[in-house]
Amino acid sequence: MEDIRYKEQLLCSRESKAEDTVIEAGGVKLGGGELAVIAGPCSVETEDQIVAIAEQVKAAGADMLRGGAFKPRTSPYDFQGLEASGLKLLLKAKKETGLPLVSEIMDASNLDLFEDIDVLQVGARNMQNYALLKQLGRTNKPILLKRGISATYQELLTAAEYVLSEGNPNVILCERGIRTFETYTRNTLDVAAVPVLKGLSHLPAVVDPSHGSGRSELVSSLSLAAVAAGADGLMIEVHNNPAAALSDGKQSITPEEFAELMKKIKKVKSAIK
Amino acid sequence: MEDIRYKEQLLCSRESKAEDTVIEAGGVKLGGGELAVIAGPCSVETEDQIVAIAEQVKAAGADMLRGGAFKPRTSPYDFQGLEASGLKLLLKAKKETGLPLVSEIMDASNLDLFEDIDVLQVGARNMQNYALLKQLGRTNKPILLKRGISATYQELLTAAEYVLSEGNPNVILCERGIRTFETYTRNTLDVAAVPVLKGLSHLPAVVDPSHGSGRSELVSSLSLAAVAAGADGLMIEVHNNPAAALSDGKQSITPEEFAELMKKIKKVKSAIK
Amino acid sequence: MEDIRYKEQLLCSRESKAEDTVIEAGGVKLGGGELAVIAGPCSVETEDQIVAIAEQVKAAGADMLRGGAFKPRTSPYDFQGLEASGLKLLLKAKKETGLPLVSEIMDASNLDLFEDIDVLQVGARNMQNYALLKQLGRTNKPILLKRGISATYQELLTAAEYVLSEGNPNVILCERGIRTFETYTRNTLDVAAVPVLKGLSHLPAVVDPSHGSGRSELVSSLSLAAVAAGADGLMIEVHNNPAAALSDGKQSITPEEFAELMKKIKKVKSAIK
Amino acid sequence: MEDIRYKEQLLCSRESKAEDTVIEAGGVKLGGGELAVIAGPCSVETEDQIVAIAEQVKAAGADMLRGGAFKPRTSPYDFQGLEASGLKLLLKAKKETGLPLVSEIMDASNLDLFEDIDVLQVGARNMQNYALLKQLGRTNKPILLKRGISATYQELLTAAEYVLSEGNPNVILCERGIRTFETYTRNTLDVAAVPVLKGLSHLPAVVDPSHGSGRSELVSSLSLAAVAAGADGLMIEVHNNPAAALSDGKQSITPEEFAELMKKIKKVKSAIK
Repeated sequence: MEDIRYKEQLLCSRESKAEDTVIEAGGVKLGGGELAVIAGPCSVETEDQIVAIAEQVKAAGADMLRGGAFKPRTSPYDFQGLEASGLKLLLKAKKETGLPLVSEIMDASNLDLFEDIDVLQVGARNMQNYALLKQLGRTNKPILLKRGISATYQELLTAAEYVLSEGNPNVILCERGIRTFETYTRNTLDVAAVPVLKGLSHLPAVVDPSHGSGRSELVSSLSLAAVAAGADGLMIEVHNNPAAALSDGKQSITPEEFAELMKKIKKVKSAIK
Repeated sequence: MEDIRYKEQLLCSRESKAEDTVIEAGGVKLGGGELAVIAGPCSVETEDQIVAIAEQVKAAGADMLRGGAFKPRTSPYDFQGLEASGLKLLLKAKKETGLPLVSEIMDASNLDLFEDIDVLQVGARNMQNYALLKQLGRTNKPILLKRGISATYQELLTAAEYVLSEGNPNVILCERGIRTFETYTRNTLDVAAVPVLKGLSHLPAVVDPSHGSGRSELVSSLSLAAVAAGADGLMIEVHNNPAAALSDGKQSITPEEFAELMKKIKKVKSAIK
Repeated sequence: MEDIRYKEQLLCSRESKAEDTVIEAGGVKLGGGELAVIAGPCSVETEDQIVAIAEQVKAAGADMLRGGAFKPRTSPYDFQGLEASGLKLLLKAKKETGLPLVSEIMDASNLDLFEDIDVLQVGARNMQNYALLKQLGRTNKPILLKRGISATYQELLTAAEYVLSEGNPNVILCERGIRTFETYTRNTLDVAAVPVLKGLSHLPAVVDPSHGSGRSELVSSLSLAAVAAGADGLMIEVHNNPAAALSDGKQSITPEEFAELMKKIKKVKSAIK
Repeated sequence: MEDIRYKEQLLCSRESKAEDTVIEAGGVKLGGGELAVIAGPCSVETEDQIVAIAEQVKAAGADMLRGGAFKPRTSPYDFQGLEASGLKLLLKAKKETGLPLVSEIMDASNLDLFEDIDVLQVGARNMQNYALLKQLGRTNKPILLKRGISATYQELLTAAEYVLSEGNPNVILCERGIRTFETYTRNTLDVAAVPVLKGLSHLPAVVDPSHGSGRSELVSSLSLAAVAAGADGLMIEVHNNPAAALSDGKQSITPEEFAELMKKIKKVKSAIK
């Protein structure tokens, strides 16, 4: 693990474990050569919304459902999510569709509420919230750890190490775009993160093209690029009414667009096998 | 507050309060035209170390003592600080010198331990740890909020707003360098942050030239630049044996260098009055 | 062309010309849905070297040969290229293989020397060398314009406009990685540039994964990602002895690796058609 | 010169020449502890404009007059400067006031036109236009070399070396802000560049707070910061009617503001002596 101190100690490094880690979450496998697609809205808004989207993304071939209940927002006056009741709506969607769930946790004191959530997401803003990472390291939950907006590969991996070193080996790394000088896109998707992280670490690496660009019209191209680069999964924001979404509507694609995209994703995945 | 949404709502904005906020911490005033100098080691290491440094920086004219007890470190295998016992050593140094204390808090569950710490620091990595900010907003402690490594002015101010909107008006903004392409320095000190933040907000703005450069030989020039730009305070890492420091030795100046610097600081402060 | 002033005036914009521009260079077409692969060494070094590489990349399916004769190097004491004699060696390789040529021009006073070079490259450092761009705009040569290391999409397009506005419509845009905080890779390849530039402009957009990463082990993944994202072409550094290359050996792949990559490129290109 | 290859060879390095280089231009000295202030409009517009501004900045204490005749503009459809006739207007202003002149050259084929211009400026966009730098290296004119928007210290110094290695020792380095993620300011002024460049090199280092911020209301604070950090000079945009300026009006201060600023500059300069 060139340039990275303590490589011989890092549990996440390829040096310490050569074979890919495969993480099972609600029956879905992440890592090891297969591609898992996580789809759903930025925020859970209503029962109708989340159940309808869950059914649509499942029909299109999604493997897991995402939806935010606790939302980290830049301003305290923005919509902060439905919180505990949002998690309950996610569980209804799971019951209806069987899709395992991914949702963000911001505060370890809420861990009880996430008991039936299959994958706990740590957002980019909390990538170096070590108090949170240590507490998640004491659970056995799969953790989807998003790269901070200006985190180096080394910092992402040592953040993952905070979870692993506490005893939880189930970390999924997520490239979601980094902050650069370019403002046309919300972030700059660093697609090289996929081969770099998979070279340095045995952990699965997934890509979020929605935050990675902030523009729905780019999500398809970036999803295919991520698959071609070898990503173990994608996390895509899908909303059945993007214009009315309570958050991130501009980067959400519709269920119809998602269904079209899934067909292309499968072709590209086949092409690189 | 150009470019910043909700400006009419933001409690931190000049639009909502024209006069400078002056925050009193342990008898020292921050904001309103005076200059407060906070000095001390990156980490509290031993009683001898912290008491000796406290005495030396006090003799040179420092107003407050800094020292880390809970340390956020990139790797979980780096020194994590003396934690609760480090805070006790800080209190001894305060007892000996009368200097009020600044120390970083990473986890709100530790709030009890910080009861006698005068200013609670939130580090750059936790600038958008909204769970922590909200809990600090329910105290009446002065909070020194460091700018995230890639946080815009808007994001720093809306992070401060998380504290203010919960009822605590005592936030001190801290520019400590941002992450850029330049690697010769650890960070790039954005000295324009001082006039920008003081223009947009009534909160005090201080500068940390130690993290802002990562190089002790630059600390003097950057301190004087910050004072000339109108900073309300400086936070400077001082160590009596930088080469043996348990963290950040490369950016720490010696007590002797600090004493020299204080003389120049006073001259520049006089020149711009 | 959102966010970009003068859009109604820009000759390079989709608003001014809806259909893709197809540029013909030495019989090879760039733009319009096909994929052109340009391959060859960073620098022309010897006749044996350039002819051998040309034969090998042609056998593997490359469409054009690249090779630098005038080299912009950060230090004046680095190898500056074989200059005029390097161009002559390129012409020999063209005679042997029939591959059209791409080579960098740094100074318009050298234009005569480039008479038989099929595509003139403007490097990232000269993207805003407007004196050079204007003079190239008065030729009818295809110009491959590399994005500056910190150029926005808008700046790349208005730089292209300097060529177009002088009368030369033959500009090929090239994403070659941007400068960010990440130092593990030489640059951060911005794969979103492909759909963004093709959305805003009718000009062809190609990708250079070699400068885009600076690491040969990433070139394959990034090439496939660029193709999946819809690139009109790739420019790949290939050297038959990377360890002994006079420049950029670290990011060059071998002819054997290139041949393997070409097979995958064709599969991914088929998958997205 | 840590991290910089060829340090033992670099003519610009402190290792090769310990004492400060002092460059004389039209009777004004740059380097060696004194502070030179260059002031004037972004673009020369009319005889009345440039002569009036020259008289005003001279009265306020400026040492040299700046004014652009050849203007590098992002779009080819923006005002490109008065070119040769602009240089003639500058010479009239020099005749009236005695102030030496600084103006930007973009194309070495124009060198004849600059015969009576005292300092030739190379803009940020051309910092790595090595063809231009080499030709300027064959003159004995003082060259003010602006740092590229994303140039490292090393790259700025090796660009200067292109001039020095051709025989011209008269290079003035200019920090003018770098491109970062922050968009509130046009660029982020890197004030640490002053002590860093003066540590690594014996060449004079000046600061341009106008491009360094893009906002006239910040120019005063940033000028004082640069002086406090040890700059050998300042280059400040002054316009007698900023709102009507043909370029960069937003970052220009008025002659009255400049006169006020000069008083403060002198006080800070005295304070750090």
